[in-house]
Amino acid sequence: MSGPHPLDDIDINILELLQENSKINLSQISSKLDVAESTIRYRIERLEKWGVITNYIALINPRMVGLNITAIMMIKLDPQKIKEVSESLAVFKELRHLFRTTGQYDMISVVNARDIAHLNELMEEIKMIDGVKELIVEVATELIKVDPKFSLR
Amino acid sequence: MSGPHPLDDIDINILELLQENSKINLSQISSKLDVAESTIRYRIERLEKWGVITNYIALINPRMVGLNITAIMMIKLDPQKIKEVSESLAVFKELRHLFRTTGQYDMISVVNARDIAHLNELMEEIKMIDGVKELIVEVATELIKVDPKFSLR
Amino acid sequence: MSGPHPLDDIDINILELLQENSKINLSQISSKLDVAESTIRYRIERLEKWGVITNYIALINPRMVGLNITAIMMIKLDPQKIKEVSESLAVFKELRHLFRTTGQYDMISVVNARDIAHLNELMEEIKMIDGVKELIVEVATELIKVDPKFSLR
Amino acid sequence: MSGPHPLDDIDINILELLQENSKINLSQISSKLDVAESTIRYRIERLEKWGVITNYIALINPRMVGLNITAIMMIKLDPQKIKEVSESLAVFKELRHLFRTTGQYDMISVVNARDIAHLNELMEEIKMIDGVKELIVEVATELIKVDPKFSLR
Amino acid sequence: MSGPHPLDDIDINILELLQENSKINLSQISSKLDVAESTIRYRIERLEKWGVITNYIALINPRMVGLNITAIMMIKLDPQKIKEVSESLAVFKELRHLFRTTGQYDMISVVNARDIAHLNELMEEIKMIDGVKELIVEVATELIKVDPKFSLR
Amino acid sequence: MSGPHPLDDIDINILELLQENSKINLSQISSKLDVAESTIRYRIERLEKWGVITNYIALINPRMVGLNITAIMMIKLDPQKIKEVSESLAVFKELRHLFRTTGQYDMISVVNARDIAHLNELMEEIKMIDGVKELIVEVATELIKVDPKFSLR
Amino acid sequence: MSGPHPLDDIDINILELLQENSKINLSQISSKLDVAESTIRYRIERLEKWGVITNYIALINPRMVGLNITAIMMIKLDPQKIKEVSESLAVFKELRHLFRTTGQYDMISVVNARDIAHLNELMEEIKMIDGVKELIVEVATELIKVDPKFSLR
Amino acid sequence: MSGPHPLDDIDINILELLQENSKINLSQISSKLDVAESTIRYRIERLEKWGVITNYIALINPRMVGLNITAIMMIKLDPQKIKEVSESLAVFKELRHLFRTTGQYDMISVVNARDIAHLNELMEEIKMIDGVKELIVEVATELIKVDPKFSLR
Repeated sequence: MSGPHPLDDIDINILELLQENSKINLSQISSKLDVAESTIRYRIERLEKWGVITNYIALINPRMVGLNITAIMMIKLDPQKIKEVSESLAVFKELRHLFRTTGQYDMISVVNARDIAHLNELMEEIKMIDGVKELIVEVATELIKVDPKFSLR
Repeated sequence: MSGPHPLDDIDINILELLQENSKINLSQISSKLDVAESTIRYRIERLEKWGVITNYIALINPRMVGLNITAIMMIKLDPQKIKEVSESLAVFKELRHLFRTTGQYDMISVVNARDIAHLNELMEEIKMIDGVKELIVEVATELIKVDPKFSLR
Repeated sequence: MSGPHPLDDIDINILELLQENSKINLSQISSKLDVAESTIRYRIERLEKWGVITNYIALINPRMVGLNITAIMMIKLDPQKIKEVSESLAVFKELRHLFRTTGQYDMISVVNARDIAHLNELMEEIKMIDGVKELIVEVATELIKVDPKFSLR
Repeated sequence: MSGPHPLDDIDINILELLQENSKINLSQISSKLDVAESTIRYRIERLEKWGVITNYIALINPRMVGLNITAIMMIKLDPQKIKEVSESLAVFKELRHLFRTTGQYDMISVVNARDIAHLNELMEEIKMIDGVKELIVEVATELIKVDPKFSLR
Repeated sequence: MSGPHPLDDIDINILELLQENSKINLSQISSKLDVAESTIRYRIERLEKWGVITNYIALINPRMVGLNITAIMMIKLDPQKIKEVSESLAVFKELRHLFRTTGQYDMISVVNARDIAHLNELMEEIKMIDGVKELIVEVATELIKVDPKFSLR
Repeated sequence: MSGPHPLDDIDINILELLQENSKINLSQISSKLDVAESTIRYRIERLEKWGVITNYIALINPRMVGLNITAIMMIKLDPQKIKEVSESLAVFKELRHLFRTTGQYDMISVVNARDIAHLNELMEEIKMIDGVKELIVEVATELIKVDPKFSLR
Repeated sequence: MSGPHPLDDIDINILELLQENSKINLSQISSKLDVAESTIRYRIERLEKWGVITNYIALINPRMVGLNITAIMMIKLDPQKIKEVSESLAVFKELRHLFRTTGQYDMISVVNARDIAHLNELMEEIKMIDGVKELIVEVATELIKVDPKFSLR
Repeated sequence: MSGPHPLDDIDINILELLQENSKINLSQISSKLDVAESTIRYRIERLEKWGVITNYIALINPRMVGLNITAIMMIKLDPQKIKEVSESLAVFKELRHLFRTTGQYDMISVVNARDIAHLNELMEEIKMIDGVKELIVEVATELIKVDPKFSLR
C-alpha cells in the first residue's frame, strides 16, 4: 500500500469492516480485531481526517427504486470541446460514473435508467450537447458483480 | 417510480438523505422532512425489509489507499465459455463492477489497480483465463464524476 | 405475457391462427380451438379494440414485384440533428423498418431496392441528407428467414 | 417493375390496397379503382397463383403482447460453419428476420424479446451455438418506422 | 450468361482467346475453334459493335516502369460531397480503379505509386480534397494475382 | 522513372499509345511521334523483350457478358495458414485481383460476379476454405473509374 | 545492403560495435576486427562524412528521470490540416517519435510522460490542437524491448 | 522530477548535453555549465552508477544503411500465449521497440525493413508464430520526428 498516509494492519482491518457494513459499532470492531475500543475510535477519526474514509452512505438496490436499466455509455467528443462537454455531462444524475479515458473513446460512463424509453430520452439529450460526436451505448443485460468495496491488500 | 414496492415522497426523501450521509440520525431526518420520528423509523425499517436499502457502508478514497489507477476493461469471450469466464472474473477483487453487455464486447468491467505494473499483472492474469479472446483496457486519466447515489426522481 | 391487457390461452390461440392466415373464418377457428364461434367473434373484436391486432394485410413476395435487393443500412448521424434526419428518412418508402439504436450506429434500417443501381441512388440520396455522417450498407445475399409472426409464448 | 411476371397498373393498384388492408372487399376495390369486380377477382386470383401475393395475415402490436424489446443482432460466425449455424438460428421464434450479409457481419437478425432478462437469455443461448464467434446486439430504443408494405412503384 | 446480347459458345470461345492474347490472328482462331474464318470475323465485328469488346490494349508490367508500390485506398467522405470528390479523385492518374461501395467506406481505389515518398505525396494531395474525411491506405506487400481476364462461364 | 531498364521519351510515348489502343499500327505511331517506323519497331521489340510490355489483350465490358456485380473482398486469415489460403483463393476465376496487404485485412481482392446469388455462392465457398477467419464484402454500387492504363510520367 | 553509399564488411562491423557502445576506442575496435587502427579511423570519419553515423549520444533510462509512462498515441486528423497539426505536434518534447502512416490513423507517436496526470494533460493539450479529430492512446504496460540499434545485415 | 534518485539542476544540465552529443568533453561541459570539471566528472560517474545513463551509442541514419521502410506493427495475440509470443518476437532484430499495451492491440512494435519485399517477409514470419492472431501494419510514409532524447523538465 503506497497511498500518501501510511496505513498499518489495524487501519486496513478497520476499513475492511466498515466497507462491509458501516453500522457495526466500536465494541464489535474492537472484539473482532482484538484491539482496544479507544484505539479503534482514534484510528477511525484519523482515517476520516486523512480523507481515507470520505463518507458513510446507504446502498440502494436500483431495481427496487424502478431503475431497471444499467448501461455503459462510450462517448467520442469534438476534441476541442472536452471541458464544456464534461461539465454538461456531469450534471446528469443518471450518469453516476464518468471517466475521461485513454483508448478509442474520450469518455466512458455508467448510467442508470428506468426503462428503454428513459434510456432513449437520455441518449437523445446527451447527443444534443454541442461537442458530442458519437454516443455508443451498451446495455448491461446482467450485473455479474457490483461491489462498492475496494481491494485493500 | 415503478419498482416492485410503491414508494411515496417520504420514502424517496429518506432515501435521498441516507444516500447522502447514512450517519444522519432519526431526529435530524425528522426535522429536515417535517415528519414524525416514529414514521421515519418505521419507513427506514420497511425500506430495509423490502430490500430497497441493502446495506450501509463507509466510502473510501481509492487514491488514499494506494489505488492510483482506475481502468475500464472491455472483454470479448469465446461465446461458448461465458459462464465459466464470468465466474473466474468475479473472483478478482480488483474488478469491482462486471457487466454482461449487448454491444461489441461481451463484458465490461471497472477496475482499480495500484499502478501500471499492477494493471499489467491483472491484464496478464485475465488474459490467461481460458475463454478470454480479447481484453481491451482503457485507463481512466481523470475521474470526472464518481457518484454512489442513484437518481430517485 | 405481460402486455397492458391480460391475454388468456384462447386469445393467444386466436392470434396464432390469424398471424398464420387471416382468411381463416370463424367456424374454422371455432372448430380448431373447440371454442364457440360467438366467443371467437367477441375475442377478435376485443383484440382489435385493445389494439392487439392492428391490421389485416396481404403479404407480397418482394422478388415478384421486382425488388431484388434487400439491404441493411447502418447510419451514423450528426448527434445534434437526429430528429430532423429521422423525419427525412421516414419518408423513403424503400426504408420499411427504421430503428433508433443503442450501439455503434444511431439508426438501423431494413431496405428494399430493385437492383444495385437503385440501391446506389438510394445511398446517394440518403447521404445527401444534412446530418447524415456515415452510411454503411450490408447487402443481404440470402434471406434465411423473413417471418412476419411474433412469438406469443 | 421487372419481376418475373409483368404487372400492369391495375395489378399494382390492387396490391397497394391489399397491402393497406386485406379486409377490403371486391366491390370496394372495384369502386376505388373504377374497374369491374370480375376483373378484380380475376387479377387477385392471378396474383395469388403467380406467387405475388403469398399470404393474408393479421398484424399484431408487439408491445400489446408483452414484447417490449426490439433488438438487432449482428453475428460473426466461424466461416466454416455457416450452414449449421443458419439452421440453428432459424429455429428461434424470437428471430423474425435473419439475413446473410456482405459486410462486417455474417448475419443480421431483427429480434423481439419480452424484456432485458429475456434478451440476455436469448443472447446466451445463441452464443452457446457452436460456430458463433461474436454476437453484437443493438437495442432499438425507438421504432421510428415499421412498415410491412413494399414500395411498388 | 445473362448480358443484354445473347452470346453463344462461339462468341465465348473467341472472347476467351482474345482476352488471353489479342495478337492472335483470324486463321489461328479459326483453326483452334474449328469455325470458318469468315464466321470468326463476323462474330468479332459483332462483339465490337455490341460493345462486348471495348478495346485492345498492351499490358505493362508496372515494376518495369518504376511503379513499385500498389496500394488500396479506402476513403470515407463527407456524405454531402460525394459527387465533387468523385470528380476530383477520378483525375488522379495513379488511381486506376475507383469504386463507390456499400460498406464501411464510401469509395475504394486501387493505386500505383513509384515509392513510399510518392505514395505519401498522393495521400497528402487526396487528403487535401475538400470532402475527404478519412483516407486509409493498405500497401500491397505481394501481388498474388493480377488477372485482366473476366471469367466468362 | 526508375525501373530496371532505362526508358526514354520515345519508349514512354510508344507505351502510352499502346496502352490506349494496341491495334494502332507502326506507321500511325511513327507519324504521331514523328519517329522512324524502324525505330518504333525496334523499340517495341525491346520493350517486349525487357518484359515492360507483357501481353496484348482485348478488353471486355463485364456488364455485356452478364457480370453485373463488382465487389471488393477483404479477408482476414488464420495467420498460420496464409500460404495455403493464397493458393486456394488464386484458383477462383472470379477473383481477378488478389493482394496481400499491410493493414487491418490480410488480403484484398477485386471480384466479379453475375448477380447477388452468385456472389453469395462465392462468399460461401470462400468462407469454407480452411484458414479463412473473416470475409468482409463491399459491393461496388458504381464503377467511377476502371482504367487499365498505368501512369507513366 | 542497398543504401546510397556502398558499405563493406568492415564498415558494418564498425557500425555494429559503435551502436553497442560508442565509448569503445580505436585500438579496441582494431583488435576486435583485426583491422589496422588507421583504417578504422579512416572508415569512421567516412561514415560520419557520408551521414551514416549522425551523432553520438548518452542513453538515459526514462524511469530513472521520473518518466514512468510510455504510451503510443494514434491520431486521426482533419485531412485538410495535416501539415499544421504536424508542426504543432512536433513541438511537444514528450512526443519522441512521430510518424505519418498509411492505415487507420493519420499519425502514430511514441510518448513519455511522468504519470497518468501528466499523460492526461498531454492528451488534453493535443486534443485542443485545431485539426485533431481523434486521439487514441495505448499505455505501454510493459517495455518488452527498446533497442536503439538498427539491424545491419 | 520524481525518479528513485534525486537529480538536481546540474545533473539535468549534464544529461541534456550528453543526450545532445556524448562526444562533448569534460572541459566543454564545465565551461558551458560554469561548474568545476571535477564536479562534472563526479556527477557523470554517479549518473552512470545510479543507472540514469545506461550507455553511450552511435546513432545511425537508417536510410543510409538501406533500411528504407519504417513501419508500426499492431499485434493481437491469443491471450493465453502472450509470454511465448513475446519471446519469439523479441528475437527479431528488425523489431526495435516492442511494447505490451492496454488498448485494442496486445502489442505494438516499431519496425525497420529494407523494402516492401522485406516487410512482406517479416509479416509472414511473424504471422507464422503460434499465438499470433492478427498483425496490422501501418507503413510510416513520413518520419516527422525521431528524437532519441527524453524530455527532462
